[in-house]
Amino acid sequence: MSNKLKALFEPKSIALIGASSKEFSIGNVIIKNLIHYKYKGPIYPVNPKEDKIRGLKAYKSILDIPGEVELVHIVIPPPYVPQEVENCGLKGVKAIIINTAGFKEMGEEGLALEIDFLARAKKYNIRIFGPNCQGIINSDPDLQAYCNFTFTYFKPGSISIVAQSGGVGAIIMQVLHDMGIGMRLYASNGNASDISIPEIIRFYGDDEKTKVIILYIESLSDTKEFMDVATEVAAKKPILAISAGRTEKGAAASKSHTGGLAGGITMELIFQKAGILSFSNLEEICHAAVAFSSQPIPKGKNVGMITNTGGPAIIATDELVSGGMSLPPLSKTAIRNLKVTMLDAASINNPLDVVATAGASHFKSAIEIMMKEEQIDSIYLTFVTPPFVDCVSVAKEISAISQMQKKPIVCNYITDKKNWKETTAILDEGGIPCFDYPETAAKALVALSKYNDLRTREKGTVIRFENNKGGVDKAKAKIIFAAAKNANKEVLSASEVYQILEAYNIPIARWAVADSVEDAVTKAEAIGYPVVIKADSENIIHKSDVGGVFVNITNSEDAKNVAQLMKSKFNYPDLKFFIQECLNDRLELIIGVKAEEGLGHLIMFGMGGIMVEVYKDVVFKIAPLTDVDTKDMLQNIKSAVLLNDFRGKRGINKEGVMEILQRISALVTDFPEIKELDLNPIFANTKRVCAVDARIII
Amino acid sequence: MSNKLKALFEPKSIALIGASSKEFSIGNVIIKNLIHYKYKGPIYPVNPKEDKIRGLKAYKSILDIPGEVELVHIVIPPPYVPQEVENCGLKGVKAIIINTAGFKEMGEEGLALEIDFLARAKKYNIRIFGPNCQGIINSDPDLQAYCNFTFTYFKPGSISIVAQSGGVGAIIMQVLHDMGIGMRLYASNGNASDISIPEIIRFYGDDEKTKVIILYIESLSDTKEFMDVATEVAAKKPILAISAGRTEKGAAASKSHTGGLAGGITMELIFQKAGILSFSNLEEICHAAVAFSSQPIPKGKNVGMITNTGGPAIIATDELVSGGMSLPPLSKTAIRNLKVTMLDAASINNPLDVVATAGASHFKSAIEIMMKEEQIDSIYLTFVTPPFVDCVSVAKEISAISQMQKKPIVCNYITDKKNWKETTAILDEGGIPCFDYPETAAKALVALSKYNDLRTREKGTVIRFENNKGGVDKAKAKIIFAAAKNANKEVLSASEVYQILEAYNIPIARWAVADSVEDAVTKAEAIGYPVVIKADSENIIHKSDVGGVFVNITNSEDAKNVAQLMKSKFNYPDLKFFIQECLNDRLELIIGVKAEEGLGHLIMFGMGGIMVEVYKDVVFKIAPLTDVDTKDMLQNIKSAVLLNDFRGKRGINKEGVMEILQRISALVTDFPEIKELDLNPIFANTKRVCAVDARIII
Repeated sequence: MSNKLKALFEPKSIALIGASSKEFSIGNVIIKNLIHYKYKGPIYPVNPKEDKIRGLKAYKSILDIPGEVELVHIVIPPPYVPQEVENCGLKGVKAIIINTAGFKEMGEEGLALEIDFLARAKKYNIRIFGPNCQGIINSDPDLQAYCNFTFTYFKPGSISIVAQSGGVGAIIMQVLHDMGIGMRLYASNGNASDISIPEIIRFYGDDEKTKVIILYIESLSDTKEFMDVATEVAAKKPILAISAGRTEKGAAASKSHTGGLAGGITMELIFQKAGILSFSNLEEICHAAVAFSSQPIPKGKNVGMITNTGGPAIIATDELVSGGMSLPPLSKTAIRNLKVTMLDAASINNPLDVVATAGASHFKSAIEIMMKEEQIDSIYLTFVTPPFVDCVSVAKEISAISQMQKKPIVCNYITDKKNWKETTAILDEGGIPCFDYPETAAKALVALSKYNDLRTREKGTVIRFENNKGGVDKAKAKIIFAAAKNANKEVLSASEVYQILEAYNIPIARWAVADSVEDAVTKAEAIGYPVVIKADSENIIHKSDVGGVFVNITNSEDAKNVAQLMKSKFNYPDLKFFIQECLNDRLELIIGVKAEEGLGHLIMFGMGGIMVEVYKDVVFKIAPLTDVDTKDMLQNIKSAVLLNDFRGKRGINKEGVMEILQRISALVTDFPEIKELDLNPIFANTKRVCAVDARIII
Repeated sequence: MSNKLKALFEPKSIALIGASSKEFSIGNVIIKNLIHYKYKGPIYPVNPKEDKIRGLKAYKSILDIPGEVELVHIVIPPPYVPQEVENCGLKGVKAIIINTAGFKEMGEEGLALEIDFLARAKKYNIRIFGPNCQGIINSDPDLQAYCNFTFTYFKPGSISIVAQSGGVGAIIMQVLHDMGIGMRLYASNGNASDISIPEIIRFYGDDEKTKVIILYIESLSDTKEFMDVATEVAAKKPILAISAGRTEKGAAASKSHTGGLAGGITMELIFQKAGILSFSNLEEICHAAVAFSSQPIPKGKNVGMITNTGGPAIIATDELVSGGMSLPPLSKTAIRNLKVTMLDAASINNPLDVVATAGASHFKSAIEIMMKEEQIDSIYLTFVTPPFVDCVSVAKEISAISQMQKKPIVCNYITDKKNWKETTAILDEGGIPCFDYPETAAKALVALSKYNDLRTREKGTVIRFENNKGGVDKAKAKIIFAAAKNANKEVLSASEVYQILEAYNIPIARWAVADSVEDAVTKAEAIGYPVVIKADSENIIHKSDVGGVFVNITNSEDAKNVAQLMKSKFNYPDLKFFIQECLNDRLELIIGVKAEEGLGHLIMFGMGGIMVEVYKDVVFKIAPLTDVDTKDMLQNIKSAVLLNDFRGKRGINKEGVMEILQRISALVTDFPEIKELDLNPIFANTKRVCAVDARIII
């Protein structure tokens, strides 16, 4: 497969079907770009009516071209595309970029054309990129292929970009280019009728000169393919990704709670599971890429800050601390050494203020001493260029130390680059990631550190509850699901739900239904006090409102009285007593599951009751859950402190909650037909954890 | 006063004491800057050892200068400064910028020097700017005074900047300058020994050519002065402000809850109260200033979006919606007209995708139609420059419409500015605020809209509870406070607290202390069931743990039994029964007060119990509270829905809660000696609201 992408990304020759002499036309712009970027192979404009285009000989047809053609751009109107793909096949072309728009995105007619050209491409073993796309760029100095109608002629670098939206791709390229950063490969594949984003990611993963990948994605067509490829590539090199549409998605209606809350976060969970570093802001992803492209990954969260101005360092500290990083105190040795090497006015501390009058020797010593500090993992630098300081020399020292690549450095560089050209060039050549604002510099460093967390994270293991081991009876659950399916049920009945949960040994509050007052007392005794008694009849809709619910019944006498009272009050022939154990001193939790097309299940955990309603205090993970996942889930709700001893209240049995999560994970993995599942509420105290109500939709 | 600042900001002549020929020195850089920026008045270098500095005649002393000197820079070491201030006085100088550092920030010796030069300045009626500061810049074409050692030679514009930190000021200047934005006045006054930030704000407020003010501030020396001036100026023109130190401040320890939660947000509350638009990010404040400097203020939150590329528009929509804005549907007329004027492939909607091939006529029509839409208050534009489109013509149309200043436009402009120079220049001249990222463009528009909210906000009125009217008995409270002060009390006793609350007619839960079992029953009956009974003795520390608290006692028999049980269990001679009414179906709220030096009191309102512990679900306002403030407070907690009917539970008496807030506001306004006050918990149901526990520290 990837040798076909080789023809796309490393074409030895390029033809353009629809080349044009008209200045404002795509067929002209691509030829112009190929020439301007100094493409190393032959360029063949194809146009039946022209002899020369932009000084190059033009051919009537692709078939008239004398030499071999590896890659072709097609920019002619949709109806003519299939025949030209056929001609490309006859010519032995390996890959085609169809820039033309107007295929499946425009309705049935377009879709038919798309199906047509795809079939022809397949016949000749040609890979299609697009249609309705920009194309690719490869900056390799041996190739310099600008197969694209965009405008950013970037220099070679180690960042490769794949963007589902060409507009977003254009922003990323241009911003990095404006920052003086080189890039390696670029791809924006529009409709993605054949070559997919995961294939491109795999190609970038295999490309040795790609050090970091930027991904912009709006939707996934094959979640599993994406997950597999991304997981594999992310293990080799950093993938930084950003998605969009969070508010639209957030608004998407869903029947259930879990569904409603899951909306906007699915993509982020996928990124997380695959080991991709996720961003929510284009600037942050671009800036992070700059840092990743030149700096080593820090081993921890401790930052040493060096500054020659006060305010920006305060702002940076705020941002670093908000991002989970720390500024540890300096060692006694470091302080002793700094007292010798720094100016008198310097503030020897972390942040270390070398003051505005500090020169090259002060910066050199400050950075060297920070680099030697064992407890410091990275260096944050604020460098304003005072006109009364020899900043060129300062820059030289910073660059020299940085190039040893011991610990990452990021820099909030404050200057007029047009007047401080030499200083700026030295920092650029030294590969120092320089940012205009303290916040953006700090965020780039936070991103490096978060990638370290991601890279070194323990994934944990999924506990397998074998059949009939650990109390799991898959066969029993299978029969129930099969029966429900046969009956065309979507919502399982309470008894089906409880039986399934019992088969997976998921604890539910003890309950029973009694026919008579005497039976109620007997069953309440069997369950054990305290109990709740509810009047159960089809004629009673809002039990609580009509006095049909009594909680916290602690003895048989009260149970009898309550049942008798209900009997006289609700004199319906179908009256039954629903008796359930009443857990005191309990915390109300919720676990939910929602199936995501092509992805499997999202599992949600959180505080129940009004906490989930009001504060959305829940976390999601993708099934199957590992032991580390379940631990994370309990730790990552905002109200995690409530699970422990808190303000005189005893903590809950967290192991029990985690086990339920594991068992639910096993259940939904065994039965992919589960669409939604809710355990709500779950009551937990120091000892017991059990679901009080549950619901399954298939 | 302000004519003295006139000498600072509009000096007719400038001398520099400590001018130097040494390249890397402040005394050289300032002369260089004045020359480079083409200062229109005479420049007098002062240096006893030099005849010429940078081609200008140098003087041995300020007293040797033949002409009048309005403004002087002093850059010599601290010990020589007082004498030179004296000489300036003799010379008739009106204002001095002391750039030199090493005064009060370096300890006692420095402080003594600072006191010395200030006394001399006062004697001669000289205003001092600094010390330990950068200076000022005035870009007025008639003056061009660069009295500063920084490096950003900005062009004239309408943004004026005042920055407590010179480093942050340098970033703001440079970033705006890099964006091609002009500025008007700049000031960074370091130690601020004399001329204060509020004075500078007032000067900017009076300066006709200043259209928008950017303020960076770390701390306030005179909160009242700041509040008064800022409120006055913010009513005339937008003040955009940013503070720093949020995480440090957040960590500041405080005895009480309220104090702990108030930490980081005081400055934001001050900004809010003064009508200043608050930012938490340097980039956002700079970008907002760009939009404010050229665009009108939108009248509402509805945006019309026009784009020629998809992805960035999605990202922008996310950001606008997150910022509280909406993209309303287009009118039928607009849709009909657009169907005629747009390309076939265009997506006629809001966002309106004119598609990449759209030219000048399409953009023109799109913007004109959006401008005419009554329900649209502002225009968001995404404009990528396709090389196959005549972008110069597009830019001309955009600029022409924008200059009519009907509704604000912001633009996410995606291009290579070096190659699209003409297009870029046209947009610049048209005053279109252009941003590289969709998020930043959207945020700038959100800021314009938030300013509209701020500008049109209702401030409301403070309800005055006159003595003995509305149940307020200030005289009674005065006696209690006086007695407590006489007794050197810091923490008032429960009975003092309750009496004060009663004097201000703040409802507290009915309570009583009973001596005997019989008395307990009598008092419980008087209070009315249900009640809580607590065993009250110095020997019982953790009442709940030892079974000393019984809640929800509903009748006299139970009350008697409970009291008897307690009596036999806790057989202490001092045993009493604390009886308090028990409010069922209640919501637990909290109101807190914390005094802030120089500012008055912060009042906090929020959900009580674990909500305040875990979710910090509280809002703060500065006293005195208006009726609008109290309404805002109830609306702005995250769990505001719980105050209304919610999931079958009845809402609470919100008027009652607001009245308590008003009365607490009156109380702390009447008694500034109150340091902290907590009503925690307050129980509220549909009818009643009352405090169950309270605490006052003076």
